[in-house]
Amino acid sequence: MRMYDVIEKKKMGGVLTTEEIEFFVNGFTDGSIPDYQVSALLMAIYFQGMNKEETLSLTLTMAKSGDMLDLSEINGIKVDKHSTGGVGDKTSLVLAPMVAALGVPVAKMSGRGLGHTGGTIDKLEAFAGFSTSIEESKFINNVNTIKMAIAGQTANLAPADKKLYALRDVTATVDSIPLIAGSIMSKKIASGADAIVLDVKTGSGAFMRDVDAAKQLASTMVDIGNGYGRETVAVVSDMNQPLGLAVGNILEVKEAIATLNGEGPEDLYELCLQLGTQMVRLAKVTDSEEEARKMLEATITSGSALQKLKEFVEAQGGDSASVDDPSIFDVASIIEPVKASVAGYINHIETEEIGFATMMLGGGRETKDSVIDLAVGYVFEKKLGDYVEAGGTIAMIHANDMDKLKESRTRFLNAITIGEVAAEKPALIKCMIK
Amino acid sequence: MRMYDVIEKKKMGGVLTTEEIEFFVNGFTDGSIPDYQVSALLMAIYFQGMNKEETLSLTLTMAKSGDMLDLSEINGIKVDKHSTGGVGDKTSLVLAPMVAALGVPVAKMSGRGLGHTGGTIDKLEAFAGFSTSIEESKFINNVNTIKMAIAGQTANLAPADKKLYALRDVTATVDSIPLIAGSIMSKKIASGADAIVLDVKTGSGAFMRDVDAAKQLASTMVDIGNGYGRETVAVVSDMNQPLGLAVGNILEVKEAIATLNGEGPEDLYELCLQLGTQMVRLAKVTDSEEEARKMLEATITSGSALQKLKEFVEAQGGDSASVDDPSIFDVASIIEPVKASVAGYINHIETEEIGFATMMLGGGRETKDSVIDLAVGYVFEKKLGDYVEAGGTIAMIHANDMDKLKESRTRFLNAITIGEVAAEKPALIKCMIK
Repeated sequence: MRMYDVIEKKKMGGVLTTEEIEFFVNGFTDGSIPDYQVSALLMAIYFQGMNKEETLSLTLTMAKSGDMLDLSEINGIKVDKHSTGGVGDKTSLVLAPMVAALGVPVAKMSGRGLGHTGGTIDKLEAFAGFSTSIEESKFINNVNTIKMAIAGQTANLAPADKKLYALRDVTATVDSIPLIAGSIMSKKIASGADAIVLDVKTGSGAFMRDVDAAKQLASTMVDIGNGYGRETVAVVSDMNQPLGLAVGNILEVKEAIATLNGEGPEDLYELCLQLGTQMVRLAKVTDSEEEARKMLEATITSGSALQKLKEFVEAQGGDSASVDDPSIFDVASIIEPVKASVAGYINHIETEEIGFATMMLGGGRETKDSVIDLAVGYVFEKKLGDYVEAGGTIAMIHANDMDKLKESRTRFLNAITIGEVAAEKPALIKCMIK
Repeated sequence: MRMYDVIEKKKMGGVLTTEEIEFFVNGFTDGSIPDYQVSALLMAIYFQGMNKEETLSLTLTMAKSGDMLDLSEINGIKVDKHSTGGVGDKTSLVLAPMVAALGVPVAKMSGRGLGHTGGTIDKLEAFAGFSTSIEESKFINNVNTIKMAIAGQTANLAPADKKLYALRDVTATVDSIPLIAGSIMSKKIASGADAIVLDVKTGSGAFMRDVDAAKQLASTMVDIGNGYGRETVAVVSDMNQPLGLAVGNILEVKEAIATLNGEGPEDLYELCLQLGTQMVRLAKVTDSEEEARKMLEATITSGSALQKLKEFVEAQGGDSASVDDPSIFDVASIIEPVKASVAGYINHIETEEIGFATMMLGGGRETKDSVIDLAVGYVFEKKLGDYVEAGGTIAMIHANDMDKLKESRTRFLNAITIGEVAAEKPALIKCMIK
């Protein structure tokens, strides 16, 4: 087999066989096929696409390029939840305790944040003493006893994807639906879950800005999961504004705790109910979505989800006192209102910029080695469709450095568009693909 | 400027600026931009194309990457003729003496053949003692005195094109009209001609198999030449069968001499008249195409073109006796008929295969270092549309090795399709683009 022929075939719109896909993925990973041929093929794939079978083959080849985790020692149906990433997305912190409280095993491998979106592990480290570096035996034991564990990724998951992604990143071939779907799903499949619930974000703060493209990505990933025999559901949800009100690690943890207390923002709670309903259903707790939703609501009203969060934090060495008394968390030294210069309706939020504004405060990583300031961020008071007076407060900024505050606030304000007539509010849930 | 942005822009169908084109061509040539980014861009160009201005910028940037020849010491308007390559294409050997006989200066840089097409320099070396390694001063002096010189390419012409072509060759990005046009024209422009006549071949023996694609390539090259202020004309001509009857170096030289004697095959003679008419017109010998054609015909009937060939051969150290007596040339040791197994009409010739069959006899180079057997080849007796009896002769094969003869003959016969009903003969001239 010659790489030239594989490139030529895809360039002409042909369908690559599993052998051809394995040939180029494995050859690239082991260094026998040069990057300049692979980047030409990636660009051809960008233009010609890949069908269901090709995308599944690509995903599986990448999944099998490294460790394939075996979670069989964990009792029950393991349902993984994955978000494509957004600003203010603290869903896992609320959702995982809710479903775990219903007996659904949550065995989550999570990552740190990079760029404008935060990572779940960073947020969990707000709990003093909390560790995500736990041994496999403890991880499995924790899930079996308290139904919930979150560990940092230590396994060598899908190294082929890692290498391909690095090449895509410098050759403008990231934004191809089959390549994105294959990249995400290869890691999901390698991490060994029995079923997968995907939260595909769309809008100004998401990688997929266009809702139709997001639906297509969701549908492609559902096909991959189901094609591999892992029941998969995707929810396409709005990311035209931050989810909830808080953006920034500790601020988001506090909001998650408030939500588990039944006092959280409506959009965050609703998204957790929607995703949780699918998780509960895929875990075969109940077949009825209506019943699943009621069970999930009961984990909030009964306090069982909040209790689960405490058990989980303690089981991984963290101090759960802050769950009962969030005032224990670090607080930024400067907290002041960000004011609107004109009156009107919040009509557009360039949400990615809100993420970058938070990063400028020290709340996110510019590079892998950046140290995060967990206390900083923004708490919105007005969101899309809300009216603000001239001089009225749009959000509270939490900062530890006045220079950074000023820079960040300017970026924040530039990201907000205020209009005289209210624009339509975006729907939270765009569609669900089963 | 970032290469990533250049790739992304072209991928999205944008038009690259001259600065962006210079950035990537020069950066690739000097090694500051890695090949994996360039190959991604080349594939994006394959899909999105390049407009006139982009193609001209690409061509000029590549032309200026090396030596730009200065032919100003040569008197008169220097008209270069370039063929995109075909099988049995001995046009230059006939055409150059014809136009030189009319006072049009022919200062030609030529190459050796590689693969299934032969090179003019290989053919000229059939004349004992002939050298194309002549000094610049002698080259210029020869053109000024006898109006004709052909030298091997020694200058460092368009090294950026050379490097880009090598990358295209392994990344399936050769067949892009703007990239092909830029590659050819960058070398033509660097070689300093005042005007250019292009012979774009199309059909089963040409790089451009599709006539519409050939017309598009011709038109793109004409735009480039004219865009740089070098008056350019392109003739799109048929290559669905070898040009003339002879394929193989000495066999082609003999056919060229016969044509200069007024006894050559009609298609070869007609193509020389068509191309010559444009050369004579561009050299401002006459404005009238009708008159130009008559003048060219007269170079044959008067013998002045044949005389010019002899002067030229002698001026570059060759023995011109073989022009008067072609029996002096080497002759292959085995000459025998290639016979048809069935009766019928020659309906298709897979012409590229005829080139490869000749290469198998030793008549062409498999690699740059192959030594050519000048005497071997084929002389057709039947061409497209001709009727052949079962057992009748299609061509004479000239070989120096019986094993090679057998292998080559099989390949030759497999390339010929004989049908019961005569197919239409292809027109020699498809179009002319001025």
